Amino acid sequence: MTLPAGASVLLTDLYQLTMLQGYFDQGMEETAVFDFFVRRLPPERNFLVAAGLETVLEFLEGLRFTDGELGWIRDSGRFSDDFTGWLAGLRFTGDVHALPEGTIFFAGEPVLRVTAPLPQAQLVESRLINLLHFQILVASKAVRCRLAAPDALLVDFGLRRAHGAEAGLLAARAAYLAGLDGTSNVLAAPVYGIPVFGTMAHSFIEAHDDELEAFARFARAQPDNVVLLIDTYDTEAGARKVVELAPRLARQGIHVKAVRIDSGDLAAHARRVREILDAGGLHDTGIFASGNLDEHELRRLRQAGAPIGGFGVGTRLTTSSDVPYLDCAYKLAEYAGRPRRKRSEGKATWPGRKQVFREYGASGRVEADTLGLEDEDLPGEPLLVPVMQGGRRLHPPETLDAVRARLEQNLERLPAPLRGLEPAARPGVNISPALARLAATLDGTPRPEKSGPGDTKS
Amino acid sequence: MTLPAGASVLLTDLYQLTMLQGYFDQGMEETAVFDFFVRRLPPERNFLVAAGLETVLEFLEGLRFTDGELGWIRDSGRFSDDFTGWLAGLRFTGDVHALPEGTIFFAGEPVLRVTAPLPQAQLVESRLINLLHFQILVASKAVRCRLAAPDALLVDFGLRRAHGAEAGLLAARAAYLAGLDGTSNVLAAPVYGIPVFGTMAHSFIEAHDDELEAFARFARAQPDNVVLLIDTYDTEAGARKVVELAPRLARQGIHVKAVRIDSGDLAAHARRVREILDAGGLHDTGIFASGNLDEHELRRLRQAGAPIGGFGVGTRLTTSSDVPYLDCAYKLAEYAGRPRRKRSEGKATWPGRKQVFREYGASGRVEADTLGLEDEDLPGEPLLVPVMQGGRRLHPPETLDAVRARLEQNLERLPAPLRGLEPAARPGVNISPALARLAATLDGTPRPEKSGPGDTKS
Repeated sequence: MTLPAGASVLLTDLYQLTMLQGYFDQGMEETAVFDFFVRRLPPERNFLVAAGLETVLEFLEGLRFTDGELGWIRDSGRFSDDFTGWLAGLRFTGDVHALPEGTIFFAGEPVLRVTAPLPQAQLVESRLINLLHFQILVASKAVRCRLAAPDALLVDFGLRRAHGAEAGLLAARAAYLAGLDGTSNVLAAPVYGIPVFGTMAHSFIEAHDDELEAFARFARAQPDNVVLLIDTYDTEAGARKVVELAPRLARQGIHVKAVRIDSGDLAAHARRVREILDAGGLHDTGIFASGNLDEHELRRLRQAGAPIGGFGVGTRLTTSSDVPYLDCAYKLAEYAGRPRRKRSEGKATWPGRKQVFREYGASGRVEADTLGLEDEDLPGEPLLVPVMQGGRRLHPPETLDAVRARLEQNLERLPAPLRGLEPAARPGVNISPALARLAATLDGTPRPEKSGPGDTKS
Repeated sequence: MTLPAGASVLLTDLYQLTMLQGYFDQGMEETAVFDFFVRRLPPERNFLVAAGLETVLEFLEGLRFTDGELGWIRDSGRFSDDFTGWLAGLRFTGDVHALPEGTIFFAGEPVLRVTAPLPQAQLVESRLINLLHFQILVASKAVRCRLAAPDALLVDFGLRRAHGAEAGLLAARAAYLAGLDGTSNVLAAPVYGIPVFGTMAHSFIEAHDDELEAFARFARAQPDNVVLLIDTYDTEAGARKVVELAPRLARQGIHVKAVRIDSGDLAAHARRVREILDAGGLHDTGIFASGNLDEHELRRLRQAGAPIGGFGVGTRLTTSSDVPYLDCAYKLAEYAGRPRRKRSEGKATWPGRKQVFREYGASGRVEADTLGLEDEDLPGEPLLVPVMQGGRRLHPPETLDAVRARLEQNLERLPAPLRGLEPAARPGVNISPALARLAATLDGTPRPEKSGPGDTKS
């Protein structure tokens, strides 16, 4: 079986289809507005990074039921034939507004808004959350790794323990757009044009009877990319073998670009290995480290002055292990011209078509965001922009390099404490008076403006 | 783009290809033996559940490079033309031994062993780990949910916050084989034959001007599956509307199967809702709950006597949020007839072709496992069985129901404390004297038998 997951419109929750049957029966096809947002920021994240928009737009453009999928729906006995026939013609014809990828955002701010006939806007919920949630999760972790080691080579090594195939691929994408230099995942090159990096595993060394011979053979097989893994048996002994081998390779025009250490006390080993390499004249041979790294470990190694120029960051990045999920949602804000909200305990939502207005202080740094109604005249830069109209993109896909540049600019405008790894006071997300009034009107009772849902404040 | 992730052999780490180029150059195609195992169990897990074998066998059977993939490899400029040509003919022709899915296992025990020409056994590493790691992770979490609520209806609701499409699909599979009743993920039905469940979202209620009218319409659209979500505005008021509506529906032959609560204090709401339903004569209408559930919350609700018959378990299950990854590896144990091991600090491995022998006490409960050499004559049940020979399966795929039955049997034979949610003393994993001697011989120095790698003991 080749897993059809990413491609199938059936990768959705059953209740989307049962609700669609209900909407179909009642002819409820008027325009609905849904927001995707993160309810609360975890204490481990000072900000989040918008990511995944491009993959969502691809999903919306390609949305349709194949004959096979319609066959399953028909055979399930859960739905009417009329409804199944109608599904056959279903396409996404709506509008999308979104924060461009690489935009920094906070709790309660819409990252993406869908405006479409109710059944379409409803049907896309599960996959849209699935795509945005994970890429935001990884991008928001990856940017912390970059901030912890601004000038190091950082490579995503997380494929093997990412949660499935698509997680491995989308994590490479999210990590790269958030500032990493590339990935070990080959598929990310043809699919997303991301630089790929790779050296050797311990098994390559072990399959040879002699470590030095393994080094020599690898160097000849990959003469332009000689990074030798030296910790299979004894790290410092491995480094001495590299020194022994280097002149032989040099005569063949081969340069040992770096050695890799993957176990033990990385800082201590790196220092001893640096001495061995320097004493052997290999000043240009760098040290690359991997093994259970994350932003805190990177910072520790940098602060310890470990002579390591590059890092493979794996499992903890692609599983976002300290924060493996975000409290995010995709919620109805308007239907048939009327604003809507839910008031479930701890999960109330803001109604209407909203905009995020970002204000900068005299220093150029973000001072505060205001969540208001789209047509309000509020100070600040409106962050949500139209990206799809009538089911068609308004612009060609952005390059990941453009996204990286946007994030860099966003980081420059972020108050310095938020760029640190420790929890810092986030800029407030204010609720505009008009939005607060609208919510109160819908509730049927006047309500004080400062009791807002979620993490936001008014 | 339809994500080709699961289907592409390029979903691998670049170093697999660079190593293969090295093996190719040197003609290193002799037989290699690799083990997949989990180095250490996290304190939050008393045991792990083997899962993912079937998807690995599918992957191995289908392994080949397409013209497009070969084109990328050729154009990358990293590999020789001879090598690329040789890749075109590469298939998996090896043998696989494995723990059958649903088998309970512990640290250091091989879950799967690949015996194949070195390049093949090497190339499959990244994807093989990617498939096994995640399914073991979710199955080992799901079984804890089942143990916490043995007689409740338990449904996987985790697609939206699973890490990508494949995670959503494979989590449904792993959760079902570990004892859940089904999933909300529609695709799991046609792909894996897993029962799907679904009701309605808050947006369905909100899109109507009147909650009772929304209930009525949903019931008529899905008359055989009426589960009404009652917490959009006020949970108890919602329950009273269900009581009001039920006689009208009954006259149309429609039964309200259950109500769903998704917010607030689930136990308190469930008690009040139960009273309202009972007072209204709806004794047969059940209560289904969801919202940030995991095994601990399930146990708390059961212990509190909350009148809830079914649960949707979502994000915390499909991200295995308390343990988002396992420390697992795929390591060379033999090449060209010679046992191999790495001795990297904290990551040393056991050499040779191994078997896990499980001994049961007089009570029929697992007493101890012994990791020994395959050809040793040791007491206990050998757990690793041959599943693939020469690249072909030895048996047709097992049904997930057969896997569920095996896990149930395994659970019955597990010491009772291990079936609890709190950390308990795990049975020891002994190292056979012959295996310890082999490792010592390879190290070139006699070593005491009790200093073994990883979590195991001798």
